[in-house]
Amino acid sequence: MDHAAQVMERLETLGRISDEPGRLTREFASPAMRRANELVKSWMAQAGMTTRADAVGNLIGHSPGAHDSSKLLLLGSHLDTVRDAGKFDGALGVLLAIAYVEQLKASGQTVDFGIDVIGFADEEGLRYQISYLGSRAMTGQLNETDLERVDANGITMAAAIAEFGGDPSQLNSCQMGSETLLGYVEVHVEQGPVLEQKGHAVGVVTAIAGQTRVSVTFEGKSGHAGTTPMKLRCDALCGAAEFILQVERYAKLQPGLVATVGQVTLEPNVSNVIAAHCRLTFDVRHQIDRIRTQACQDLRLFATGLQQKRGLTMTWQTAQETASVPCSVELSNLMRKAAQRHQAEVIDLPSGAGHDAAIMATIAPVAMLFVRCRDGLSHHPAEFASVEDIRIALEVLVDFVLSLTSTT
Amino acid sequence: MDHAAQVMERLETLGRISDEPGRLTREFASPAMRRANELVKSWMAQAGMTTRADAVGNLIGHSPGAHDSSKLLLLGSHLDTVRDAGKFDGALGVLLAIAYVEQLKASGQTVDFGIDVIGFADEEGLRYQISYLGSRAMTGQLNETDLERVDANGITMAAAIAEFGGDPSQLNSCQMGSETLLGYVEVHVEQGPVLEQKGHAVGVVTAIAGQTRVSVTFEGKSGHAGTTPMKLRCDALCGAAEFILQVERYAKLQPGLVATVGQVTLEPNVSNVIAAHCRLTFDVRHQIDRIRTQACQDLRLFATGLQQKRGLTMTWQTAQETASVPCSVELSNLMRKAAQRHQAEVIDLPSGAGHDAAIMATIAPVAMLFVRCRDGLSHHPAEFASVEDIRIALEVLVDFVLSLTSTT
Repeated sequence: MDHAAQVMERLETLGRISDEPGRLTREFASPAMRRANELVKSWMAQAGMTTRADAVGNLIGHSPGAHDSSKLLLLGSHLDTVRDAGKFDGALGVLLAIAYVEQLKASGQTVDFGIDVIGFADEEGLRYQISYLGSRAMTGQLNETDLERVDANGITMAAAIAEFGGDPSQLNSCQMGSETLLGYVEVHVEQGPVLEQKGHAVGVVTAIAGQTRVSVTFEGKSGHAGTTPMKLRCDALCGAAEFILQVERYAKLQPGLVATVGQVTLEPNVSNVIAAHCRLTFDVRHQIDRIRTQACQDLRLFATGLQQKRGLTMTWQTAQETASVPCSVELSNLMRKAAQRHQAEVIDLPSGAGHDAAIMATIAPVAMLFVRCRDGLSHHPAEFASVEDIRIALEVLVDFVLSLTSTT
Repeated sequence: MDHAAQVMERLETLGRISDEPGRLTREFASPAMRRANELVKSWMAQAGMTTRADAVGNLIGHSPGAHDSSKLLLLGSHLDTVRDAGKFDGALGVLLAIAYVEQLKASGQTVDFGIDVIGFADEEGLRYQISYLGSRAMTGQLNETDLERVDANGITMAAAIAEFGGDPSQLNSCQMGSETLLGYVEVHVEQGPVLEQKGHAVGVVTAIAGQTRVSVTFEGKSGHAGTTPMKLRCDALCGAAEFILQVERYAKLQPGLVATVGQVTLEPNVSNVIAAHCRLTFDVRHQIDRIRTQACQDLRLFATGLQQKRGLTMTWQTAQETASVPCSVELSNLMRKAAQRHQAEVIDLPSGAGHDAAIMATIAPVAMLFVRCRDGLSHHPAEFASVEDIRIALEVLVDFVLSLTSTT
């Protein structure tokens, strides 16, 4: 069996390890995560790696370099999942990295630097409603307050870590040591439709996009749908509809911008009563922060204009704002060149979703390779990437590390 | 105390009779309706009327005519309420009719024809989810199947009528006898903002508008808000927003048309996921049926056009369709002339809400007088009409009946 087919088989096997019967759910420090780590650890050992778990529960397999052990390349992704997940999100990046090391060993080749393959203990944040626990710990961004968070059963994060076999008092030890980090490289399913639309197996990620989430409310005046003439209405829903369409129109004109109203709450939400109140969420992302913040400003201005035009009261409440994290230009150039050896055309694309790479960028240059997924579907049991695309991704990873060797 | 002030005082008294503590709710055949009927019956008797309750529970006070007892004028409205109601909706029309008869008696005058003042047992349909029980019974439109309906406690309508002292087996007896019905005349709060906007105390109703209720759904494609580029989206909410604005635009251009989207259900309704599914209600009313049905056709065509334009699937399901009920031109002319004696300008307006008059129109010519209400508010504890406006409405009613006397 070739290595890509083996990755596919392992994704199936790993995908059956779940905290819930009948669907795939693996949350931080859970029984399923323990079994998943045990299994992945055995695959790491099979690839000739020494293995360890750090104090927060990240699984790390190490393959020493031939000459210079002070330099280290990090490869990986996360092993936890969302609820009712697909089998590829996270797991693909970890298993592909192991396959790379195994293939390297089988070929009798070596690279100069050490390689750590990381299976992060938590990226999705399902259990404690805070994402990236694994990479936060590894970059020194997990603090005492986080440890006091409780899950749905009232169990603190500290207790969960201890129960899992970690050590909540030693989180500092998770931070990467004094080695020179050459980079953190993550292969991940795209979770969007761009590569499929282009007919490409893989693409190079330019940045993890910045994101703003806003809660926008329009307050109008309730009234009887049968007795209130059109010209005497202050319909909160009509104001919201104008905003929703303007968000779409604006984003379509701005290359790379995505902007979405995904949630609407209407009051009183009755068929024969004019809506008095409409609350909606506005999510906007771009890899260039300036473009995103300008979009927020422009659309806020538009929403403000609706107040006078429609006799409504508008409130704008920014709920979250995260800056864009650019990938390393140098590493991405190497990744693009490696990809071009296996694919006629290679596009750059931003990641609209968050990834461990965004956190790891605080301690190392990062690069990401996206793999095409069917129908752009992710966070869903039908999530799928083909063995052919996985094979190409593996070949690209091989060539990427090879080119990194010759540049270091 | 003048009669208008007395009506106001009685509205207060009657408004305290409720099936629920702390708020006004009187449902069909309930303990509160029994007490309300007893009280109103006493006021009818005080005005010199003989009183009876029919088999469904309608309260009827009779004042004989001076000469021709074969002719009968019906005045009235309903005594039930919605949940957490105002004190004026329904009750005003009944108490004003009693005040008219009392004033007539006090003045020593008589009219040629008999007058029945009706307090309908149910118009709002709160208990059995079917409206106009009182006027349906009086016009022979209540049938055996209706009697089998059950309320929230499993009590059939037949049982409720019997318990209230009526006779479910004798509903035919509710139908008006062989007298020549001169008409059914109902005074009611407007339940809308038109008269207040105009600065008028009263207005003449031209018709009870026809109504169509439609359930419209747009089905698009779910997707990650961060990873799905704008041009690859099939956003069900954006399609719905276009429809909502077109409904508003269309209705604003068509005099007298009111069209409303009041209810929106979104799936999955999550801030970072593109809406896959949007269901909304579309309510359209006009006093001319042709204009309403044309509006439905035009807007359905628009919604259909969104399918191709946006890659959505649209479904259109008509949930309810009721024809417009025109008021009697002759009676309305008399009402308008009567009103013009008390108000410099008198406008005609349709009723966007339903009324007993729409049912009574099947057995008699009908006319309605609307009384201004504060902020257009109805079906709400803050519902209010002023004693000055009630006085004008009473004077108009007096003049109307007087003019009817001279024409019959």
